[in-house]
Amino acid sequence: MALWGGRFEKSIDEGMHDFNRSLSFDHRLAAEDVEGSIAWARALARADVLDPMQVQAIVAGLEAIMDEIEHDRFHTSPEDEDIHSAVERRLGEIAGDVAGMLHTGRSRNDQVATDFRLWVMRACTVLEAALANLQRALVTSAERGLDVPMPGQTHMQPAQPVTWGHWALSHVWPIARDRTRFAAARASAAVMPLGSGALAGTGFAIDRVALAADLGFDRPCENSMDGVSDRDFALDFAYAAAVVGVHVSRLAEQVILFGNPAFGFVEFDDAFSTGSSLMPQKKNPDPLELARGKSGRLIASLMGLLVTLKGLPSAYDKDLQEDKEPVFDAFDTLRAALPVISGCLESMRIRPERMAAALDPAMWATDLADYLVRRGVAFRTAHHVAGRAVRAAETKGVALDGLELEELRQLCDVFEADVAAVFDWSASLASRGALGGTSPTALAVQLDAARWAIGEGEGGSAAKKSVPDCSA
Amino acid sequence: MALWGGRFEKSIDEGMHDFNRSLSFDHRLAAEDVEGSIAWARALARADVLDPMQVQAIVAGLEAIMDEIEHDRFHTSPEDEDIHSAVERRLGEIAGDVAGMLHTGRSRNDQVATDFRLWVMRACTVLEAALANLQRALVTSAERGLDVPMPGQTHMQPAQPVTWGHWALSHVWPIARDRTRFAAARASAAVMPLGSGALAGTGFAIDRVALAADLGFDRPCENSMDGVSDRDFALDFAYAAAVVGVHVSRLAEQVILFGNPAFGFVEFDDAFSTGSSLMPQKKNPDPLELARGKSGRLIASLMGLLVTLKGLPSAYDKDLQEDKEPVFDAFDTLRAALPVISGCLESMRIRPERMAAALDPAMWATDLADYLVRRGVAFRTAHHVAGRAVRAAETKGVALDGLELEELRQLCDVFEADVAAVFDWSASLASRGALGGTSPTALAVQLDAARWAIGEGEGGSAAKKSVPDCSA
Amino acid sequence: MALWGGRFEKSIDEGMHDFNRSLSFDHRLAAEDVEGSIAWARALARADVLDPMQVQAIVAGLEAIMDEIEHDRFHTSPEDEDIHSAVERRLGEIAGDVAGMLHTGRSRNDQVATDFRLWVMRACTVLEAALANLQRALVTSAERGLDVPMPGQTHMQPAQPVTWGHWALSHVWPIARDRTRFAAARASAAVMPLGSGALAGTGFAIDRVALAADLGFDRPCENSMDGVSDRDFALDFAYAAAVVGVHVSRLAEQVILFGNPAFGFVEFDDAFSTGSSLMPQKKNPDPLELARGKSGRLIASLMGLLVTLKGLPSAYDKDLQEDKEPVFDAFDTLRAALPVISGCLESMRIRPERMAAALDPAMWATDLADYLVRRGVAFRTAHHVAGRAVRAAETKGVALDGLELEELRQLCDVFEADVAAVFDWSASLASRGALGGTSPTALAVQLDAARWAIGEGEGGSAAKKSVPDCSA
Amino acid sequence: MALWGGRFEKSIDEGMHDFNRSLSFDHRLAAEDVEGSIAWARALARADVLDPMQVQAIVAGLEAIMDEIEHDRFHTSPEDEDIHSAVERRLGEIAGDVAGMLHTGRSRNDQVATDFRLWVMRACTVLEAALANLQRALVTSAERGLDVPMPGQTHMQPAQPVTWGHWALSHVWPIARDRTRFAAARASAAVMPLGSGALAGTGFAIDRVALAADLGFDRPCENSMDGVSDRDFALDFAYAAAVVGVHVSRLAEQVILFGNPAFGFVEFDDAFSTGSSLMPQKKNPDPLELARGKSGRLIASLMGLLVTLKGLPSAYDKDLQEDKEPVFDAFDTLRAALPVISGCLESMRIRPERMAAALDPAMWATDLADYLVRRGVAFRTAHHVAGRAVRAAETKGVALDGLELEELRQLCDVFEADVAAVFDWSASLASRGALGGTSPTALAVQLDAARWAIGEGEGGSAAKKSVPDCSA
Repeated sequence: MALWGGRFEKSIDEGMHDFNRSLSFDHRLAAEDVEGSIAWARALARADVLDPMQVQAIVAGLEAIMDEIEHDRFHTSPEDEDIHSAVERRLGEIAGDVAGMLHTGRSRNDQVATDFRLWVMRACTVLEAALANLQRALVTSAERGLDVPMPGQTHMQPAQPVTWGHWALSHVWPIARDRTRFAAARASAAVMPLGSGALAGTGFAIDRVALAADLGFDRPCENSMDGVSDRDFALDFAYAAAVVGVHVSRLAEQVILFGNPAFGFVEFDDAFSTGSSLMPQKKNPDPLELARGKSGRLIASLMGLLVTLKGLPSAYDKDLQEDKEPVFDAFDTLRAALPVISGCLESMRIRPERMAAALDPAMWATDLADYLVRRGVAFRTAHHVAGRAVRAAETKGVALDGLELEELRQLCDVFEADVAAVFDWSASLASRGALGGTSPTALAVQLDAARWAIGEGEGGSAAKKSVPDCSA
Repeated sequence: MALWGGRFEKSIDEGMHDFNRSLSFDHRLAAEDVEGSIAWARALARADVLDPMQVQAIVAGLEAIMDEIEHDRFHTSPEDEDIHSAVERRLGEIAGDVAGMLHTGRSRNDQVATDFRLWVMRACTVLEAALANLQRALVTSAERGLDVPMPGQTHMQPAQPVTWGHWALSHVWPIARDRTRFAAARASAAVMPLGSGALAGTGFAIDRVALAADLGFDRPCENSMDGVSDRDFALDFAYAAAVVGVHVSRLAEQVILFGNPAFGFVEFDDAFSTGSSLMPQKKNPDPLELARGKSGRLIASLMGLLVTLKGLPSAYDKDLQEDKEPVFDAFDTLRAALPVISGCLESMRIRPERMAAALDPAMWATDLADYLVRRGVAFRTAHHVAGRAVRAAETKGVALDGLELEELRQLCDVFEADVAAVFDWSASLASRGALGGTSPTALAVQLDAARWAIGEGEGGSAAKKSVPDCSA
Repeated sequence: MALWGGRFEKSIDEGMHDFNRSLSFDHRLAAEDVEGSIAWARALARADVLDPMQVQAIVAGLEAIMDEIEHDRFHTSPEDEDIHSAVERRLGEIAGDVAGMLHTGRSRNDQVATDFRLWVMRACTVLEAALANLQRALVTSAERGLDVPMPGQTHMQPAQPVTWGHWALSHVWPIARDRTRFAAARASAAVMPLGSGALAGTGFAIDRVALAADLGFDRPCENSMDGVSDRDFALDFAYAAAVVGVHVSRLAEQVILFGNPAFGFVEFDDAFSTGSSLMPQKKNPDPLELARGKSGRLIASLMGLLVTLKGLPSAYDKDLQEDKEPVFDAFDTLRAALPVISGCLESMRIRPERMAAALDPAMWATDLADYLVRRGVAFRTAHHVAGRAVRAAETKGVALDGLELEELRQLCDVFEADVAAVFDWSASLASRGALGGTSPTALAVQLDAARWAIGEGEGGSAAKKSVPDCSA
Repeated sequence: MALWGGRFEKSIDEGMHDFNRSLSFDHRLAAEDVEGSIAWARALARADVLDPMQVQAIVAGLEAIMDEIEHDRFHTSPEDEDIHSAVERRLGEIAGDVAGMLHTGRSRNDQVATDFRLWVMRACTVLEAALANLQRALVTSAERGLDVPMPGQTHMQPAQPVTWGHWALSHVWPIARDRTRFAAARASAAVMPLGSGALAGTGFAIDRVALAADLGFDRPCENSMDGVSDRDFALDFAYAAAVVGVHVSRLAEQVILFGNPAFGFVEFDDAFSTGSSLMPQKKNPDPLELARGKSGRLIASLMGLLVTLKGLPSAYDKDLQEDKEPVFDAFDTLRAALPVISGCLESMRIRPERMAAALDPAMWATDLADYLVRRGVAFRTAHHVAGRAVRAAETKGVALDGLELEELRQLCDVFEADVAAVFDWSASLASRGALGGTSPTALAVQLDAARWAIGEGEGGSAAKKSVPDCSA
């Protein structure tokens, strides 16, 4: 039975009933709905709308339903329009007529927004934890090769030597920002709409501050029309998830490339690879590809919500029923993907010998320019000289360190015999010692900060240390 | 059992198996998968890869599976990775070892693309029919009030009188364009990838032209790498659906407004309305609001696909597994929404008296300017005079037709007593008689064209008639 | 002259040069580029890379350029590739060869990210102020009609009476959340990449903490690869702007409707309206429509950025050059739109008499149900009874308050003569007195909180007051 | 002077004027606006609204303006609201009062839609040609290495040998589909709204079929309200451009990877590369990266349009002014990018020796399975055996062709000495001879079809040839 039949003469069209019904997805809010209703019943009692017997009967009934939900024994009926109707129907079956008093002063408009916000608050907490685990997997990987040299690339071309640890840690900080975004989404959700009624506020003397505290909200909303209309928290959640999607796609893209035999920097574990139905030799990094591809649905969820909200009058419109599925999908996507990505990173083997083999002497060109700068040559000139040296080596058919001193001196007479010291990967790495750089000391500081960020370290943020750590 | 275990030493991680698995959604391709496999078996036989006994056993087994699918008796197993694995497993159970010959020269890469294209071709046909039905509902509505005057609006302000029929027909043509887009998507899907193998083509002498004909494709694809990589057909489908979403949102927006008591141009039927859990008097146009809101998910499906495809190397990447859900969701959304919108339009009552009451005399201002133009005044001057007349009427506190002739003549001495004839809604409507306009004759022509567009009329496109029908 | 010619043999293709060039838009970063370079020169001096004479010459030259920029006398050349090249070229013209020392230890990768972040930090501050002004316009409007009754709508159908002030304040809080989002975007931008070099860190002993403080950043970034790769701050900015776009579209939609003569709740000022080239009587709310439509480009800017970033390897790829235009466009859009919306709201006239005329007695139905609840009837029953009353009134052809007591008692014998007191708009409004509701006392509290939010009030957040203000 | 001042008392707010004004972008429609006005003047003359002297004066004036536009001598004024106002103002300056007659029976609503459609029709033609040139560059590249073996990849892992030509041609067909989409967009634009007036049709006896023919449209629109409201053609254009963006991003991604030294399959020309401001050795594929990144703005343009249109009432709303900039941006982006991509592809050097070096013997695994199939082993078994062979070779530390016959026979006793013939790249390529495959004969057929598609070949579509070309 619908909650609203009184003024209607005809019953609802069957296709319309199916189209309108939200139970297929909002059943996920069952626990939150019961929780919200228990708090509401108590608030009604505090406002003297329910007497002690009534509130006791209602709360007992709702607790029985919660027990059914937790033990997977809560059944919905084809006539239930949504989870709210289903719970109220079931409450009637358990508690009798007193069930009809529960909805006093409340509307599904404020009820559903309350349920959904409670759900989103929890979802943020779950995903923050999964993100922290992904950070842990990255930190562990960084530790396995903190100072292992590998070619750093920009524009997908060799740029300068970095280390595996430096690379792995470079993905820890985007995830740290993601956690901040989910914390913001949680705060955004933690404003209670209950007591807003349909739009004008509730007609009963509800203490909304106490009610908010009961339910774990930070505070009640300031305006009842905004309360039933606001879906910013869903946007904030979907946005946080979309950015995770982008970050994961970038991480996955790189690891997939590193796993290609042309690079061979990593080898995927069998447990996180799949084969081909046709090609017997295949071992594919499917989870990383899927995670990369799922950036599409994560961005789409945000887009869909933005479009649905665009141009809607405030207060409540049925369009808002479209708010839940994208949020659920974003949550499910990340809850499934993040542990698999973590597992994939943890289980893959890194191959320092392949990284070393890929170090291209041309990547010493910046060091060569810096050598000249340290001997007083203006950087712009030094850069030009080093560029000519690269071309000279190419023309001669040797690597950059294959040029004779005399050849270098023809380009710039500042070069001396000590230039040979430039052509050393350790020296090159060690020279980038300012905060955030790729030198062993800078990386040690950064690793410390990363451990702290995942709650495992001793120190604080590297950035908060005021003395830069530079080797010359 | 996976289709590819040979080279692997360790079994797959459990979370990874769940993450990787596509059966929860690609089971919808079951019939197409069997159909494609039957055709493939026959093509293998024509290429002498299977002998007559083998092909007969395989085809008989597949037909048995098709029967199971059609009667909802086809069961998948938790180990099945996808629908292709499930069908091949079941074939083995029915037909024995010969099942292992079916996948010869084929990859899941070309197989899934083939299945999905067959599905999309059918989905286009289904939605084209649903769109034609929506056009029918609009034409029927137009017929009910073809010449009923109502205020036409631009910028949500009264502009010029039009008729209900003119308004209803204005939504027939966007849907006609939508049908064209689905026809284009169908043509885009009707190119067969089967025989592309994993990426390099099949190693057996398959007659792909005959195979394409067998399966109802227009032709085989030109390049096997493109064949397994191309998802333009999914984009084209999602784009067509997204534009329907926009069109429906515009239609719904207007009908919702027309149903607000401030307008009251239409009254919704109880069967397509819902009430409120709190406010007993409410009768809400939920289906229209939901349809408007679902433009979000339809646009999102397109967006998600575009993002997933962005930057992917050609040939096959696992990211492509993300292609199906947005297409299925777009299809399900429209298949559910279109009939409900049609039902809503068919069942609602139009209220000519409320439309008439909303005709604002200021809407005669253009007619007033046109009166002057017909008497030789330059339009720009006539427009200015009519604007002054509107202001004069406002100042005087009367409607535009409440100005005395003398007052009009103070603004422009071209006005004569016959100006009174301007203030007549029928005359105003009749004056817009060029093709596409709101005059009764132009509307008759247009209605004829609309009937023809839905396969019910006698005539052709109004636009093809070369003589404009204009009243002076 | 390009900054990098040394190793190249051929000059760049002309079309390629134009395609690659970013000066047409990144010239907007001129001031930030100079500012960053001054700080960098000083950091190089602190690291003993530049001597006092050198740093003085460089800084003086850069200050001269800043003066040119401020007085619109800074000219770029067709060969300048980007703003960084243009500034370095000009510095050479002013300061001579010492200019070639400035880029020591720096890359355009960390330079452009630094410039852009400085720009975004300022843009956030500018838009926060514009948003506060929009809040002020809404608060002023609320004050003009704080307790003026108007029909509250849900589903675009009359729901319950609210007041103009309640409605206007309902749009203050979304804007408050928008300001929070821009504050978050600003914090996101306030992490300094300078000193990250191309990707591996700088090769000189730069004190990045001091450098960050010099430039007004909160702190330096933790990882140099992340430093040149991270565009989360641009996403956060674009996201904040997109949500403003959605909020403004919702506000505009409602005001546009309120200005339609069918409602007539507001009248737009001539100064914020436009006419029609054809229809002399037209007065259109163009700025509100444009602002609504511009939600498209605001959402698009966010989507474009997300797509560009998807799947990019970390460190720097040229794709990142696409980061600036969407951010600039979002900024320009809001900087132009927000004051016009504010002006439109401030200048429009509200029409309480039209709001009063639109109060539909059926909106008392909830009050009627609440009447019964207060007399002990279970809400679900009371709701049903009130619904029957609405239908009975419709059948009888009278308003809800036109039913005789006897007729009401036939539906439920709890009704007494005092039910007449229900049919009073003031009483209905006054009954919704819980925090956030539409009663005069609740609105006074909320107005106080809104004034406080815009820095004008005395009190604190309404939500922080612990005693709900309820009239019975 | 605005075109509509008559009824207004106050002048427009200055900020509002700037906000509202579209001249900064719609000036691009100047030629189309004049062209449309000339045709309109002639249509008015045919309808006896203008006499021969009047039409002659108007047309002469408009032709003078067209001449000014073509010679860059057409100047707008700060008061001009849009290009239509600017042209009408200028016409008045040239032709005097008769200019005021031009706008008779026309509205800017139908005028701007007409101008924009004419522009889009031309833009489609321009981009179709640029796309054909990109196809030419790909075909040329294919010809340079039609049969050069290279490792084909799926999941970014070596899969099966293909050839450079096969790969290059795989990108020709997506572009062919893009051309089809622009042809569809052009057809979508080729429906004339002129004569729709503001929304209700024109009040004068215009022969719209003749007018459409004059302007090069296929036909007039069927419904005037749809005529001024429909922006499907802009969506179709933006969609076609977005898909090009995706296709180009995929192409660019691959070429960028092929240019990384780990692959080294191609070497970029200096003329299409850029260097680094810091790293002297760098040679970056900037144009490809930019083109990949610009998929973001292309997709964004489509999304922005969809959002702007969502929920708009039909007829005209000012939101529609937002239709032009995304379309212009999409056009400018592709017009700039496509030739640069073509130039980049044409000028890059392919390196067959590096491709050959990357052929991994494990890619013979499918051939090994096919060997067994041809000897009667069921494919599923053959696949498993070949997988075991791959693992056996890995364990033994040899390539797949390094297993002894005896070792193979331990896995499956069907292997004979002739298995050695499997390990031959030419044989592997030749075996994939079905239509669309990678064998020399199949590629010759495909190349022929590709040449035909770009208007250069003799033959027809490969797919239309009925005899598959298969080597056993």
